[in-house]
Amino acid sequence: MSKRILIVGGVAGGASTAARLRRLDEQADIVMYERGAFVSFANCGLPYHVGGVIAEEDKLLVAKPALFADRFRIAVKARHEVVAIDRTAKTVTVRDLEAGGEFQDRYDALVLSPGATAIIPPIPGITGPGIFTMRTIPDARAVKGWISERKATRAVVIGGGFIGLEMVENLRHLGLAVTLVEKAEQVMPPLDAEMAAPVRRHLEANGVTVRLGDGATAFEHAADGTITVRTEQGAALTADLVILSIGVRPDTTLAKQAGLDLGPRGGIRVDAQMRTSDPAIWAVGDAVEVADAVTGGSTLLALAGPANRQGRLAAASIAGRAPAFRGVQSTAVCGLFGLTVASTGASVKALVRSGITDFTVIHLHPAHHVGYYPGAKPIHLKLVFRPSDGKVLGAQAVGTEGVAKRIDVIAMAIQMGATVEDLAETELCYAPQYGAAKDPVNLAGMIAVNHRSGDAPIAQWGDVNEHVTLLDVREPGEWQAGHHPLAVHIPLHQLRDRIGELPQRRPVLVHCAVGLRAHTAVRILRQRGIDARNITGGWTTWKHCQDAKAR
Amino acid sequence: MSKRILIVGGVAGGASTAARLRRLDEQADIVMYERGAFVSFANCGLPYHVGGVIAEEDKLLVAKPALFADRFRIAVKARHEVVAIDRTAKTVTVRDLEAGGEFQDRYDALVLSPGATAIIPPIPGITGPGIFTMRTIPDARAVKGWISERKATRAVVIGGGFIGLEMVENLRHLGLAVTLVEKAEQVMPPLDAEMAAPVRRHLEANGVTVRLGDGATAFEHAADGTITVRTEQGAALTADLVILSIGVRPDTTLAKQAGLDLGPRGGIRVDAQMRTSDPAIWAVGDAVEVADAVTGGSTLLALAGPANRQGRLAAASIAGRAPAFRGVQSTAVCGLFGLTVASTGASVKALVRSGITDFTVIHLHPAHHVGYYPGAKPIHLKLVFRPSDGKVLGAQAVGTEGVAKRIDVIAMAIQMGATVEDLAETELCYAPQYGAAKDPVNLAGMIAVNHRSGDAPIAQWGDVNEHVTLLDVREPGEWQAGHHPLAVHIPLHQLRDRIGELPQRRPVLVHCAVGLRAHTAVRILRQRGIDARNITGGWTTWKHCQDAKAR
Repeated sequence: MSKRILIVGGVAGGASTAARLRRLDEQADIVMYERGAFVSFANCGLPYHVGGVIAEEDKLLVAKPALFADRFRIAVKARHEVVAIDRTAKTVTVRDLEAGGEFQDRYDALVLSPGATAIIPPIPGITGPGIFTMRTIPDARAVKGWISERKATRAVVIGGGFIGLEMVENLRHLGLAVTLVEKAEQVMPPLDAEMAAPVRRHLEANGVTVRLGDGATAFEHAADGTITVRTEQGAALTADLVILSIGVRPDTTLAKQAGLDLGPRGGIRVDAQMRTSDPAIWAVGDAVEVADAVTGGSTLLALAGPANRQGRLAAASIAGRAPAFRGVQSTAVCGLFGLTVASTGASVKALVRSGITDFTVIHLHPAHHVGYYPGAKPIHLKLVFRPSDGKVLGAQAVGTEGVAKRIDVIAMAIQMGATVEDLAETELCYAPQYGAAKDPVNLAGMIAVNHRSGDAPIAQWGDVNEHVTLLDVREPGEWQAGHHPLAVHIPLHQLRDRIGELPQRRPVLVHCAVGLRAHTAVRILRQRGIDARNITGGWTTWKHCQDAKAR
Repeated sequence: MSKRILIVGGVAGGASTAARLRRLDEQADIVMYERGAFVSFANCGLPYHVGGVIAEEDKLLVAKPALFADRFRIAVKARHEVVAIDRTAKTVTVRDLEAGGEFQDRYDALVLSPGATAIIPPIPGITGPGIFTMRTIPDARAVKGWISERKATRAVVIGGGFIGLEMVENLRHLGLAVTLVEKAEQVMPPLDAEMAAPVRRHLEANGVTVRLGDGATAFEHAADGTITVRTEQGAALTADLVILSIGVRPDTTLAKQAGLDLGPRGGIRVDAQMRTSDPAIWAVGDAVEVADAVTGGSTLLALAGPANRQGRLAAASIAGRAPAFRGVQSTAVCGLFGLTVASTGASVKALVRSGITDFTVIHLHPAHHVGYYPGAKPIHLKLVFRPSDGKVLGAQAVGTEGVAKRIDVIAMAIQMGATVEDLAETELCYAPQYGAAKDPVNLAGMIAVNHRSGDAPIAQWGDVNEHVTLLDVREPGEWQAGHHPLAVHIPLHQLRDRIGELPQRRPVLVHCAVGLRAHTAVRILRQRGIDARNITGGWTTWKHCQDAKAR
């Protein structure tokens, strides 16, 4: 009798498991149960379908049931919910959501890929009409229908994470006035605050009203369908629709019912082969808890890439192989009104949360390609590394061009255990329209190497106080356009001749616009025995830090 | 007495050495001699200045003598040629090309960064008017002047390497009719032939006449300034100007005069600290011979990125430090009429030249981002790896979007000694407009992993012969639009039911359009005991191979 494999959930993780399983085992019976109406759909595309960028809904259907049947001989059962697992009997109870009724199905191997569910806090009025989440094709249909039927012109988006921001962009794209309400003091909470600051400014520049440190307290539904969103700060926001994108939590209903172990973060616990605490049950995707490859901790990460990889691994494990999941490094990207925001590895936040203190941060703002070729755009790049051994721990970047490229290169570097020396030496593509002989990745590495060697230690804006000298080496015009209240001003080219003006026996923290001139200044001063340090990211990072504090 | 350091050559390598030296040593006397009129200019930008993309010549001057003086206290002596070295006396003879006369200068450390010179073969008429190379700002001025004064409308470019092709593009951009004459049977000789084929087609689609396997035999200069280029194939090409971009050779005149060791490829021999055979003399940039980090051989590489890194290393070495140059992996990129061509690591050609036979090639043609998001463009990607241990050896890519990104990621992977398993598992940025849950880099890795594991061995089009069955699993419409004369046609979804039609006991080489359906077919067949292999890159690679053979 051939092996019977049941898969619960037919989107990224489940569909990947099924297809890979068939490639490894032509004989197995493979059945994929999906409680929704669609399998293998592109949930990452939903905001863009709402915004009309992806015009046809059909495009979101990556693989249809007929393809699973014809190409893979996989039985797809949509609108079928698995409601219980009997681990002893190795059976599941399946509810037919279309025809009604329940039936049992047996398995030799069971794969859980139930995904995550949107968090919907118990706020008065939150279940009323015109308030939507964005997880499924029917969600997108509902929002599109609501907007066109109501001729909606005003939207409130609650939650400024990736999906919330993509919805903000797409609703603006449709011409709606959009207010974003975010509980944290920044948009895009996975980023560190100073990196989120330019994102917030960019949203505002594109007509989005951003309310940080605020949350909804009530949704009032008027007779004409208008919604008033009341907030903690006392605002009353009038909207024709509300998008809830507060976050997701792993759907562990079935796992709990079956008594499977959960992890410390509340996801299904799995081993490196994606096997749960029951040796006949595997789990993949947004519902599982995985190892953070950088911090070593346990984490939840609702992203399609890892879900796909996990599906392939679970299939391999079921087929009797034993490759191991390497954990996640949380590489992510988001596009917003032409801006790209991307990150990989650990943020400072994540390190602090994990109790890790051996890290140093650098900021830089290089152009995405050489300045002499027209169209060079700045990339705001943050690199986090371990000063003790130089290991790269994480990177975040914001800009309009070349952002994902640099984060992808650093993602590969982190995966391979690279040090900042490796970043400094890496040989990347260079032609004038593509980069620079010293690519931003090289520059980040070089700054960190100079810090580690002691040649040019870096400092942070937070290190500035009355016990140090703050030296601004920019040109007079830059100084006049704005400077730090504690700063002393000596332009770089006058520094050698005016060193005597600096107070004796005090550390000198040097800054320029981005860090390049300050680097040369630091080298001049240190060779004269002065404890000089370069304030990383210079005046540009100062402004981001100030923006991050502004509400 | 402070250390006196002389630098011969003030462009990428020399200028990098000088600036880094000053940062490491405030006391040294640093003098930079440059025989040309300009130092630290962006030679990579010259074709774009000719084409008017970089409108102002001044933009090409990355750092001017005043900056070297004010910021770095480096004396820049342009139009000064170092004509001899007395290694015993530690002096150089300098000729003042402006004022005339020669003088001696002493050094404690000497750095040679003379660059490379354009190859100008002894062809009749080659030194006549209207025939240019493109290495310096005066070269660019001369071409621009010639084009505008003569109202030039027809150009012939001899040599289809990077600079030649960039000149082709820029001359077309100015509206000239351009004929490219290339001695090899392909454009862009560092690429493997089938990867160069779509580049050639793209040039032709942009109005360039491409003559492969042809070379100039004479340049005839008419009284009115018109040039007739006679070629080996017997053509007589009429042109108003000719660009010679046949290649460069290291400028070793001074090194030879001084009796410094040269390497097997004719460049100046240096150690990992960029020190020549004389312990007081260092050399960097296009004139030196460096280790190929992939093949282990010795190579010449005239690129700005490595020159910069070498300059920094030479400076560190002179300052008493000992970081080591890691060698080069020949990462390069070229933009042509919206097409990007990039490569890193070893080509098949380079491996064969080095006598390395333990390698396998895969081709794939993924979209640069998910197909469901509008605007997805194919990337033609070739990955070369070592099947014995899975090490990534090289990659080449051609496409309009996302090409440099993938090559940069693979460049980092190669630097870190990554295997194809690492490529398969790497976690890159994914949102619909940026990539895919399975990025092209992941796909390349997965294909190679499946080959190494024996799950889905790949084959090459060259393996097709009368002793194997060639199976085409595409749909009928694709078959009808063109197929291989030896192929049997069974669409994938019919394969399980029609396996009996395949001849017994013969290997089955399967192909589809790009390799995805063939992969599933191979898995179906192999699980039934048939020795099936996937012809890598499918019909798309077949077409590129055919194009590569067409003249």
